[in-house]
Amino acid sequence: MADLDLSYLSIAEASRRIEAKELSPVALTEAVFARIVATDSQVHAYVRLMRHSALEEARAAEGRAQAGARLGPLDGIPIAVKDLFDTAGVVTAAGTGAYAERVPAEDATAVRRLREAGAVILGKTNTHELAMGGTTNNIHFGATRNPWDLRRVPGGSSGGSGAALAAGQALGALGTDTGGSIRIPAAFCSVTGHKPTYGLVGRGGVVPLSLTLDHAGPMARSAEDCALLLDVLAGHDERDADSVDRPAARSFDALTADVRGLRLAIVPSLLEGCDAVVLRNFEASLEVLAGLGVEVGECEPLAGFAGDWRGMVGPILSVEAASYIDDVLARRPGAIGEPVRNRLLAALEVRAVEYAKALETRKRVERAYEAALGRFDAYVLPTSPMVPDEIANDPAAEPATPLKFRNTSVFDHSHQPALSVPNGFDVDGLPTGLQFAAAMFNDALVLRLGHAYQLATDFHTRRPAL
Amino acid sequence: MADLDLSYLSIAEASRRIEAKELSPVALTEAVFARIVATDSQVHAYVRLMRHSALEEARAAEGRAQAGARLGPLDGIPIAVKDLFDTAGVVTAAGTGAYAERVPAEDATAVRRLREAGAVILGKTNTHELAMGGTTNNIHFGATRNPWDLRRVPGGSSGGSGAALAAGQALGALGTDTGGSIRIPAAFCSVTGHKPTYGLVGRGGVVPLSLTLDHAGPMARSAEDCALLLDVLAGHDERDADSVDRPAARSFDALTADVRGLRLAIVPSLLEGCDAVVLRNFEASLEVLAGLGVEVGECEPLAGFAGDWRGMVGPILSVEAASYIDDVLARRPGAIGEPVRNRLLAALEVRAVEYAKALETRKRVERAYEAALGRFDAYVLPTSPMVPDEIANDPAAEPATPLKFRNTSVFDHSHQPALSVPNGFDVDGLPTGLQFAAAMFNDALVLRLGHAYQLATDFHTRRPAL
Repeated sequence: MADLDLSYLSIAEASRRIEAKELSPVALTEAVFARIVATDSQVHAYVRLMRHSALEEARAAEGRAQAGARLGPLDGIPIAVKDLFDTAGVVTAAGTGAYAERVPAEDATAVRRLREAGAVILGKTNTHELAMGGTTNNIHFGATRNPWDLRRVPGGSSGGSGAALAAGQALGALGTDTGGSIRIPAAFCSVTGHKPTYGLVGRGGVVPLSLTLDHAGPMARSAEDCALLLDVLAGHDERDADSVDRPAARSFDALTADVRGLRLAIVPSLLEGCDAVVLRNFEASLEVLAGLGVEVGECEPLAGFAGDWRGMVGPILSVEAASYIDDVLARRPGAIGEPVRNRLLAALEVRAVEYAKALETRKRVERAYEAALGRFDAYVLPTSPMVPDEIANDPAAEPATPLKFRNTSVFDHSHQPALSVPNGFDVDGLPTGLQFAAAMFNDALVLRLGHAYQLATDFHTRRPAL
Repeated sequence: MADLDLSYLSIAEASRRIEAKELSPVALTEAVFARIVATDSQVHAYVRLMRHSALEEARAAEGRAQAGARLGPLDGIPIAVKDLFDTAGVVTAAGTGAYAERVPAEDATAVRRLREAGAVILGKTNTHELAMGGTTNNIHFGATRNPWDLRRVPGGSSGGSGAALAAGQALGALGTDTGGSIRIPAAFCSVTGHKPTYGLVGRGGVVPLSLTLDHAGPMARSAEDCALLLDVLAGHDERDADSVDRPAARSFDALTADVRGLRLAIVPSLLEGCDAVVLRNFEASLEVLAGLGVEVGECEPLAGFAGDWRGMVGPILSVEAASYIDDVLARRPGAIGEPVRNRLLAALEVRAVEYAKALETRKRVERAYEAALGRFDAYVLPTSPMVPDEIANDPAAEPATPLKFRNTSVFDHSHQPALSVPNGFDVDGLPTGLQFAAAMFNDALVLRLGHAYQLATDFHTRRPAL
């Protein structure tokens, strides 16, 4: 029988108890595995469990805790890893049949950093095929279900990580975000997800979707826990050519309840087309923030932009994805499910000049979103304009839902840090998310805003009935 | 009659004399224009002279000098500008018929910085069409001739700037370098050219050839003068999305004669196929450097690279060039000369995935060239494997000479700083160049190496018989 209370401990609280020798990392890990056994037949968050090595890691952490020699706040903390991150000796399939037998020799840099910090790696979580979609209804590995409503999607592509956190199947998780793949599942599963500044968290050993837009980052149940994870994950990665080589600010130390006087910008065009409940919960969040002394104004960073910027940057993701996997497309296309395969095959026909223009357009978007922060400290907006959609019986027949990603993908293109926190539910109990985004390398600011918001609200502490 | 001695003053010496009120900026500017009148009918370095505004600028500089209020070492110094850089109110054609009537409203950032430092802008120098070639035999504006042998090319694409410096028609010049376009003309004209670290000198208002590979930088007759120019040119440019926002080191202050103990790397594969005189002069340069206490070893940064990296990065330049000018290619292709037009039209057919792979390959080259500097301080190599080639009667029938750029383009791809200094002549008096390259942002180091070499040699002080 799962110990529900241990499964839903925050990383910060679990760490405090381990440090005080009140909590055994082994008991914690066993409680989380019991919770996985009790719930994952319904949720299907995991595609692979690593119970044996996890318990070994937990025992080592326990020894260090007993000796008063913990490696830091993540020592002994059970963490789930999206199946896009390489794990040495353990299949890393990235959700595709093309890589279903792929066994990396080496851990991804992010996984290695977690292990070096003493974290207990629980297993690999499900993802949309090649991280290229928002439902995690995986044609090769099955559909992950939303713990808040099992008929609905958990979002994607890091849907397994989001669902695992909501279901009490991990205390923290790794995700990746190319168009919203950390923040959408965070919003849909009512957990917290942070897309770091581009280049801040190394992507060495992460199966790439689009190196121009890919971000690796932490997911957890609070901004505070995301900060603890980020402080371990951030730093130069020589296996990632886009990794920045600068000292990462400590985000956890910057967390305070005080956000008075911060100026937040609403982007009116990103409120258009939002579900009524999304707008209602957003308005309520603004009232909470006003109560904390935050000032809110409006701006349109791309007001002066000629043309349809989203159409212009469109080729980036699919062209880059196709460029990494074109040998599979040529020799065994059937190993990739039809919807993703069709997008990739279409990308092979795109002309280089269109892609070159797309890259230049992306830079212009980044500059515009940075420039507009001259008058503001951060952006605040709904994470997704919609609540979780229903799971399609046939993943190949899923409707396209570009609106789902509209408010998140802009910050993948701007490369700016962005955080999603739970901010309410609709009448049926479906979650919504609130997003903060800030200037490049101001990760600590969005985490601080999320933390202050969570000190004033309790949405992030609620649990689905599972 | 031109005052030959004033025309060949170094920037450092001219500045010292202006500061001491021994030299009038107006007299200096007039002497340089007299030299242009005396020689440019043979050389054709300039496509447009700006005598009126230059003399106004010289008079203003003179006033400041008289008042003891000079703006810095460039105040009153006559500088030539490659016709790729926008000049407010003055045609900037970038060497192409497509832009022959193009009159920018604003100065390029580099030109603005020079003017703000008090420099006297002499005029616009000839370039290969769209900077896309190495002869400066321009189909629309005529051939620039090498002052050392008027039957030969000055190199390119900044051939006008290189020839102007060799002919005593300017004390410093602006160039751009995408495959060697600063350093090849420097070597071919026996002057000094510095390709700065990518992103260090802003390219706002420079007609782009390939934003992934384009570098703007200084050309002069010595490394010392290049350092004086670089210290004015370096710095963040908000008009250039790839401009780095970091405090630029002062290169001039770092110039010393002492290079003892520095470890230089020879890349043996980049000596293959070099002309005998190029190798002979390179060996002699190594002896000079050994005499200065420099240690020399060997390395092959790309030894572990699978495949033909030059072929793989090939699409970058032409695809990006085509993407900026595809409206011209579609509507009035005849405005672009045939050789360049054919390359651009071919680039329109390249697939996006090939270009995406090329960009990733370039990053791998950068990493390999950075990593190999773990054991060395800098690379040393011949600038070009060949001496200046003969001017073709028909620019459309020029033979391709990819070897000309082999040793320079590698540092455009690696984004590392590189300097070319004169290092000798062949029996016919045709110049050769010596190149130093160092790790990202170590511009001061290559300038220091060039300066120490020039203190020990006199090749950079010799003048062609014009």
